[in-house]
Amino acid sequence: MNPYSQPMLREDALKDKVAIVTGGGSGLGKAMTKYFLQLGAKVVITSRNLEKLQGTAKELEEETGGKVLCVACDVRNWDEVEAMKEATLKEFGRIDILLNNAAGNFISPTERLTHSAFDSILDIVLKGTKNCTLSIGKYWIDNKVSGTVLNIVTTYAWTGSAYVVPSACAKAGVLAMTRSLAVEWGKYNIRFNAIAPGPFPTKGAWDRLLPGDMKDKFDLAKKNPLKRVGEHQELANLAAYLVSDFSSFVNGEVVTIDGGEWLQGAGEFNMLEDIPQEMWDTLEAMIKAKKSN
Amino acid sequence: MNPYSQPMLREDALKDKVAIVTGGGSGLGKAMTKYFLQLGAKVVITSRNLEKLQGTAKELEEETGGKVLCVACDVRNWDEVEAMKEATLKEFGRIDILLNNAAGNFISPTERLTHSAFDSILDIVLKGTKNCTLSIGKYWIDNKVSGTVLNIVTTYAWTGSAYVVPSACAKAGVLAMTRSLAVEWGKYNIRFNAIAPGPFPTKGAWDRLLPGDMKDKFDLAKKNPLKRVGEHQELANLAAYLVSDFSSFVNGEVVTIDGGEWLQGAGEFNMLEDIPQEMWDTLEAMIKAKKSN
Amino acid sequence: MNPYSQPMLREDALKDKVAIVTGGGSGLGKAMTKYFLQLGAKVVITSRNLEKLQGTAKELEEETGGKVLCVACDVRNWDEVEAMKEATLKEFGRIDILLNNAAGNFISPTERLTHSAFDSILDIVLKGTKNCTLSIGKYWIDNKVSGTVLNIVTTYAWTGSAYVVPSACAKAGVLAMTRSLAVEWGKYNIRFNAIAPGPFPTKGAWDRLLPGDMKDKFDLAKKNPLKRVGEHQELANLAAYLVSDFSSFVNGEVVTIDGGEWLQGAGEFNMLEDIPQEMWDTLEAMIKAKKSN
Amino acid sequence: MNPYSQPMLREDALKDKVAIVTGGGSGLGKAMTKYFLQLGAKVVITSRNLEKLQGTAKELEEETGGKVLCVACDVRNWDEVEAMKEATLKEFGRIDILLNNAAGNFISPTERLTHSAFDSILDIVLKGTKNCTLSIGKYWIDNKVSGTVLNIVTTYAWTGSAYVVPSACAKAGVLAMTRSLAVEWGKYNIRFNAIAPGPFPTKGAWDRLLPGDMKDKFDLAKKNPLKRVGEHQELANLAAYLVSDFSSFVNGEVVTIDGGEWLQGAGEFNMLEDIPQEMWDTLEAMIKAKKSN
Repeated sequence: MNPYSQPMLREDALKDKVAIVTGGGSGLGKAMTKYFLQLGAKVVITSRNLEKLQGTAKELEEETGGKVLCVACDVRNWDEVEAMKEATLKEFGRIDILLNNAAGNFISPTERLTHSAFDSILDIVLKGTKNCTLSIGKYWIDNKVSGTVLNIVTTYAWTGSAYVVPSACAKAGVLAMTRSLAVEWGKYNIRFNAIAPGPFPTKGAWDRLLPGDMKDKFDLAKKNPLKRVGEHQELANLAAYLVSDFSSFVNGEVVTIDGGEWLQGAGEFNMLEDIPQEMWDTLEAMIKAKKSN
Repeated sequence: MNPYSQPMLREDALKDKVAIVTGGGSGLGKAMTKYFLQLGAKVVITSRNLEKLQGTAKELEEETGGKVLCVACDVRNWDEVEAMKEATLKEFGRIDILLNNAAGNFISPTERLTHSAFDSILDIVLKGTKNCTLSIGKYWIDNKVSGTVLNIVTTYAWTGSAYVVPSACAKAGVLAMTRSLAVEWGKYNIRFNAIAPGPFPTKGAWDRLLPGDMKDKFDLAKKNPLKRVGEHQELANLAAYLVSDFSSFVNGEVVTIDGGEWLQGAGEFNMLEDIPQEMWDTLEAMIKAKKSN
Repeated sequence: MNPYSQPMLREDALKDKVAIVTGGGSGLGKAMTKYFLQLGAKVVITSRNLEKLQGTAKELEEETGGKVLCVACDVRNWDEVEAMKEATLKEFGRIDILLNNAAGNFISPTERLTHSAFDSILDIVLKGTKNCTLSIGKYWIDNKVSGTVLNIVTTYAWTGSAYVVPSACAKAGVLAMTRSLAVEWGKYNIRFNAIAPGPFPTKGAWDRLLPGDMKDKFDLAKKNPLKRVGEHQELANLAAYLVSDFSSFVNGEVVTIDGGEWLQGAGEFNMLEDIPQEMWDTLEAMIKAKKSN
Repeated sequence: MNPYSQPMLREDALKDKVAIVTGGGSGLGKAMTKYFLQLGAKVVITSRNLEKLQGTAKELEEETGGKVLCVACDVRNWDEVEAMKEATLKEFGRIDILLNNAAGNFISPTERLTHSAFDSILDIVLKGTKNCTLSIGKYWIDNKVSGTVLNIVTTYAWTGSAYVVPSACAKAGVLAMTRSLAVEWGKYNIRFNAIAPGPFPTKGAWDRLLPGDMKDKFDLAKKNPLKRVGEHQELANLAAYLVSDFSSFVNGEVVTIDGGEWLQGAGEFNMLEDIPQEMWDTLEAMIKAKKSN
């Protein structure tokens, strides 16, 4: 059996916890939601598309025996976020976990973007995360309830990245929010952490968009040190750990799970991977001279 | 003479360059504007307050013999930014340098902020920087002109900081923009860098706000490894270097100028500074035992 | 029951794995060893002090029913490391996990250290880790066996820290090794990760050394955002995850587990924690003016 | 005239300063030495090869009219470093600047290195830098003289890099030393900074080693966002700034000067550079759908 698809935590790890997963109706959000349910959590999933949410909810409830609440919510809109909080409290009576997963992205040369297209990504990702965090956070603080927030960022939140610049800016903001509030709200027993996922393909995403030869050129498995992409359960395992009490002393941290992808690109001499093993014998004699850096 | 207040570059370092300095009417923006003028640049300063700009322009033109254009501009507003670009081109015929310095900040526990107060900082700092960058950038790309952008961020753009969370998020976004576009627009000969300034007090800022005993407790000079705060010319020297051709191979970089302030806080054992020298003699014998970390 | 002291993984998470834990005879190394045994691993513990190892082994075998091999080994000495590898293979027939935990530290003003005292920490921490990694790594590569390495670093490996400078330098080197080999040896199916632990007091360490008033001044719980120090099982949970197959797509990563301690120090305005809540009411009116940064 | 080859600072920027440049006899060390001389400094250059030093000294003294002292010194050896310090004080009466530039490197798959080859790089780079810093630092502290240290590191000190792992580890250690002592010795008025240079080819280095087709594949100019490599004067300008009093408030900082090379590799979507402009038109329509990240 594929070891990467196995759940890792004790079966009661999230028993009776109430979790909100924004963007929980599909993709990685759905995968994390499913595992939270399997671990005993009740989960609220949100997106702008209620119908899609309801399909996911039905499927996951059947698979896991857990309880899912669907709330239509545009996270850019403060009032909708407040209403979502109220709906959660009405249904489940409490909130323990907030997983800010809703996101948007444009893959494009930046000079082709309009200023308002750029804004729309900042609004969904950064303001949306801020709205949910501020709304639920005020609830926790006012009611002296402890809680934990997990934000999904990207490996390029720190290094930046061309061609996805609005997302890079917004996710960097989310990362700073994670670290700032980890310190400021620690005294209220509210923890903040983030995950920076590398390549976890979702059905019909990226590769469907590219013509055949491009598909090969941009094969994400090939440019990964581990020569593969991630499986959804691997991300779900890490996410479940970070929202559970087992990670109570991890605070303000962003954990990268990408097989080493970003490091592969970053290191100055990593390109030497392309030198065939047999050439090293020749080179070795030549370059074993000290090199003044 | 105070060595920290001396200009450092060759006198013609910015000769005939046209620079836009947002928020250039006061504080650090004014200090940088002044030095750019002294080095031969023509400078456009912007802010929402035209009267204040005009006072600064008059003062600086008299002091330096340089040429200043004042443009009222709310950087949050795309159309005003476009108009500012047009005014610059009409007056000076070209743009070489964009210094994104306009900013806003609320110092407050985050749970006391409304969602819209939080948004307003994101809008000024992050969207404002984006608007100016996208507007001027498109001009550079469309006209095959090379240019350079310098963004003012903060030392807490990477680590985050409590009590200034909207600013931390926004500045982190600006940092990601700096790095992303440094790579993406390098091929157009457009460079991006940033400065993260530490304590550079501006008249009547911080200390005026604090009651007496607090003033001493939060004395920024005392908690600096160098036991002082920065002088405006020190920042101006660094800024002038980074917008000049002399730094042409520095790209995507953020340079911190804070005397080591952030590192002083960050290092786990830096607090041992408070141990008096004479106690080290005693301690030395005791702790020179290996410690399994 | 204290939630922080509960084991988190499925009970067979390390079944039949063979792990080497350097410095495994005491402190955090012992805590991680114990949990690895509980999860089904066979563990080799090393240190220079065989007697101490044997006491620990006896205790842990009785508690867990697991199997421990004790090997006296000075990790600075290549031949001893090779012998330790051979002893492991002879006893257990394979090696799956290497946990580089052995370390040394001097807490001292740097100018009080001799050059050779400084060297001794570099040798134990950096050369020791390198010796174990190179020795076991060559075994894995030559025998086409996959493996995983976990290095224990510090939160000051990146920021540096006064008063523990040899350790800061050595741990930074270990961190670079972690990331470099994560990329280079990924193709051999060898993963590398690290943990940066914050305050996890071990019996009779730090606080025993300090006089009474200093003890309070340097109370590590107080300067932590979460107002507590870590428990050993919390570190053991994270370590077990990172050496298990469940973290297979985490590679080249360093996970900080310190309650947010380093961020608390790093953020420029975190000191405002000392402002009493009631003063914020007064300040709020005063400082809700835009501040040009 | 090539703007990148122009000196930038006021002509007296280092007047009467005494600087030690380890590894100053060739390559980048020589370029920095030359500019320091032009700015009025007296320079001590060291390496193990006295003859080479003397050739360089003669050449530079003739070109600049400055004064150079040559001292043979293996930085790995504490006694030789102490003797070098004494020789400097005897000749010039003081020391203001230490530039730790001496380095060594092996470009090789790590598993092909012996443990002692690995050690030799750690010794030259990390222990050598430590020896010079500790020796000169004690002189500064004991004599209440202020000073500044500039360390040359690499862009992969933080990210690590395959195929140059000993250098990555050693340079990471030097970076941690830079930051640690910037804080600890700030009170003695001793500053520490570092430069992380990207591709600054030195005569007959890298490209001479590679066969023709490889030379093209690994063309460092092509993989740089700015499509060129650096010129020595660009590095010398930055180095002169960082050792001069003009950078007095920059402390504990590492400045990268690489054209954006490391960021180019690091950002997850930077590879999209390879998509031809015309294809973006097609793609644009397809991918302007929100992507749940």
